[in-house]
Amino acid sequence: MATSLARMLKGQVRCYSAPLDMAIPASKQRYIPTTGTYPQGFQVSGTHVGVKASNTRFPDLALIASDTPCSAAAVFTTNKFQAAPVQVSRKTLQSRKGDGIRAVVINSGCANAVTGKGGLEDAVQMGRKVDECSGVENDSSLVMSTGVIGQRLPISKILDRIPTAHSTLASTHEAWLNTARAICTTDTFPKLLSRTFTLPSSPDRSYRLAGMTKGAGMIHPNMATLLGVLCTDAAVEPAALQSILKHAVSRSFNSISIDGDTSTNDTIAVLANGAAGGETVRAPGASASADYTALQGVVTDFAQELSQLVVRDGEGATKFVTVRVRNSPDYESGRMIASTIARSPLVKTALYGKDANWGRILCAVGYTQGVAEGTVVPERTSVSFRPVDGSEVLKLLVNGEPETVDEQRASVILQNEDLEIEVDLGGGEQGAAGCGGEDAVYWFCDFSHECIPAFAVDIIESREISGLKAFGSENAYIYEEEPLK
Amino acid sequence: MATSLARMLKGQVRCYSAPLDMAIPASKQRYIPTTGTYPQGFQVSGTHVGVKASNTRFPDLALIASDTPCSAAAVFTTNKFQAAPVQVSRKTLQSRKGDGIRAVVINSGCANAVTGKGGLEDAVQMGRKVDECSGVENDSSLVMSTGVIGQRLPISKILDRIPTAHSTLASTHEAWLNTARAICTTDTFPKLLSRTFTLPSSPDRSYRLAGMTKGAGMIHPNMATLLGVLCTDAAVEPAALQSILKHAVSRSFNSISIDGDTSTNDTIAVLANGAAGGETVRAPGASASADYTALQGVVTDFAQELSQLVVRDGEGATKFVTVRVRNSPDYESGRMIASTIARSPLVKTALYGKDANWGRILCAVGYTQGVAEGTVVPERTSVSFRPVDGSEVLKLLVNGEPETVDEQRASVILQNEDLEIEVDLGGGEQGAAGCGGEDAVYWFCDFSHECIPAFAVDIIESREISGLKAFGSENAYIYEEEPLK
Repeated sequence: MATSLARMLKGQVRCYSAPLDMAIPASKQRYIPTTGTYPQGFQVSGTHVGVKASNTRFPDLALIASDTPCSAAAVFTTNKFQAAPVQVSRKTLQSRKGDGIRAVVINSGCANAVTGKGGLEDAVQMGRKVDECSGVENDSSLVMSTGVIGQRLPISKILDRIPTAHSTLASTHEAWLNTARAICTTDTFPKLLSRTFTLPSSPDRSYRLAGMTKGAGMIHPNMATLLGVLCTDAAVEPAALQSILKHAVSRSFNSISIDGDTSTNDTIAVLANGAAGGETVRAPGASASADYTALQGVVTDFAQELSQLVVRDGEGATKFVTVRVRNSPDYESGRMIASTIARSPLVKTALYGKDANWGRILCAVGYTQGVAEGTVVPERTSVSFRPVDGSEVLKLLVNGEPETVDEQRASVILQNEDLEIEVDLGGGEQGAAGCGGEDAVYWFCDFSHECIPAFAVDIIESREISGLKAFGSENAYIYEEEPLK
Repeated sequence: MATSLARMLKGQVRCYSAPLDMAIPASKQRYIPTTGTYPQGFQVSGTHVGVKASNTRFPDLALIASDTPCSAAAVFTTNKFQAAPVQVSRKTLQSRKGDGIRAVVINSGCANAVTGKGGLEDAVQMGRKVDECSGVENDSSLVMSTGVIGQRLPISKILDRIPTAHSTLASTHEAWLNTARAICTTDTFPKLLSRTFTLPSSPDRSYRLAGMTKGAGMIHPNMATLLGVLCTDAAVEPAALQSILKHAVSRSFNSISIDGDTSTNDTIAVLANGAAGGETVRAPGASASADYTALQGVVTDFAQELSQLVVRDGEGATKFVTVRVRNSPDYESGRMIASTIARSPLVKTALYGKDANWGRILCAVGYTQGVAEGTVVPERTSVSFRPVDGSEVLKLLVNGEPETVDEQRASVILQNEDLEIEVDLGGGEQGAAGCGGEDAVYWFCDFSHECIPAFAVDIIESREISGLKAFGSENAYIYEEEPLK
């Protein structure tokens, strides 16, 4: 019994004693790249600091540095309680007008949020120590933190280790992977991607784009933060970079649903150092340049792929679900509907139970708040499952009428890890099906993060069950040994 | 091992084979009244129909009838996919201008939603059969349904049993309790309350108010519906009744959070037959009459108590949490903040883990959407736990500064089933603490409904574990034997 229970829970109870225990679940191995093509002129490192005293060996300080000044842009959390690093990085970007940024420094283990004036000073110091090591002027670095809210950073420890972080900077795949590890908290695997691309203005020139992100099941107290850093060796002017990032993030990191909570620290930043040469991509005036449009497409695709890794790491998730809302009279209404479906506990539960329950999907469409009048018309609404193997769409509801569903086929489709739900609004009241426009897409996982750990707490509290260590490594704690306030 | 697991799950795996298996968990027994004072001139019955073929003995048809015509009012789901009974009842109320209503008839087991024109006819027929049995004119009855979406009602079976429902009408406590049982789906206990009250215009006259509701852990496919019926023997004109109900529901049934999904069938109705005599309560003109104000208070309190029973029945819930947002510049912003805290998975998880985690509460305050500018000011925001035993408030955050929390006291407070979280916005940017105004209050439970059943599905699917019956009754099915589409 203990064995079968352990088997059921295997890979679902996580180790929180360190940012990452390196014991990556077998099912996640395929998401970790074994090689990469990284942007020229960037060097990175992951260093052990021990921000949390309990972390005695894993990297928890990430440094991403450019040999030359970069254009930079970032989107920050909309939470009204903004962590110190968010306030400091935002100010740095503003005062530099998105230009002359040299590095991003990130610690995991402590969020430096709700830490008052002292916390702001800590964040400034972190950045300045990096500037000093790089021999560049003050306030050339962006700062991010993720971890516990309401505790001050162990700033001396961090400052003491920044020279090491700087002296170990490298451009190898291993260095990038180690850096991606350093920003993890409850993540079960480091999230790193890279790719090459071209731009229309110089079709023979190769550009590179690399990025890392963190964010996972969001179980751990105060560790719900989503961080991301993208680096490219294309030359992009700051205003263009900011508008490209905004477009990309709204269609990627802002179109995934894990638990719906928005942390005090969420930050996605992009640096462009121009090391690959070529023309500078400029912000569109009257019309977008071909380079701008191409780069926007590349960055959006890339950010989508990167953000999907966060969904893949959803705690207890068994499904990766894409919901696509088509033929909405306007994109924003479609997006709100996609988001509501993705956040519906009832939809998630049905998918987990492999139940082709269009009723719950329809219900979520129907109660979406804030959509424009006339967007949802019951007799124009259709719901289908689109299998990932490219086989025929399974229609569940057509123009508001339930279809006779082939239960066996539905069951086969729902066995797959990946699934696409398509909601067709038929153009709403005014429009017509096939009216075109941008599909609104959201990515989510099926399972609540709350389940297994809560259950595991029960197990620990009951103190009656043998074989506890079978649930995780010897270092596995459901809650920290330190108070997490 | 099987025993300790069973103990952990005890009372958390539910029987879905019938609307209610009558095996009420010991911990819920105290919420079931053993007696009551019911409004004069109302008679009720709960009858077995077998709307679901699998239900061979439990009541699934509720009839609530008044000897004389009633004023009536209702609030309906805002879901754009409105079930047939919602459309029909709304039309009945409109065409009768809230007057001359004689009965409410409710079936569980099938929602009669997304059933097209045929479904509308079924709902009309249900009501008319009741009218016929009562010997009153057509369209004197309101109709409600709860259950599976997308299936037609077994209307002949229902019509055949309505005469029995009518002939067994009674005014005893047992009849009321049996009627409350008939509307249950996944509820673990029937939810019924009654009370007496007086009105200022005739202080010696006693009025009665009774109500029943359903709604529970919201696990079961398509059974997330919230229904409620209130009956009083006070005389109230329809417009007054409608505005009183709207006020009460926004502060009760619309201020609880179980899973955030809004069903196609949600309906709360109130009937007032005036059988107790006295003056008719009228809608306020320039100023509210004393009777109107008093009745509004009574109905609001009563609806709050009734709706709290739904929270008490939250699947897997171990805590009943009140969140009170004080000193918000406006009530609506405060309410949105309370609602966001109540729906935050991270807050719920922390409470389940008995963790005094103000960071998550603050985080939810900070990301609440749609609050008026200047409502949330970090340095004016305070968070406290208010123990239910009336002992001193435990301050967690005062004016944006973390308090040194007495961990032991926090732990004692968090052991209790009931807890109140107080968020003080200090009047926002413009206002001042203690500026008065209405507190925004929400009630919620700590635990995700998704956990245990999903886990139980695992258990069943693994087919390796002995002692399955230890988890529930012999009739316990996690999913229906019938397809639930």
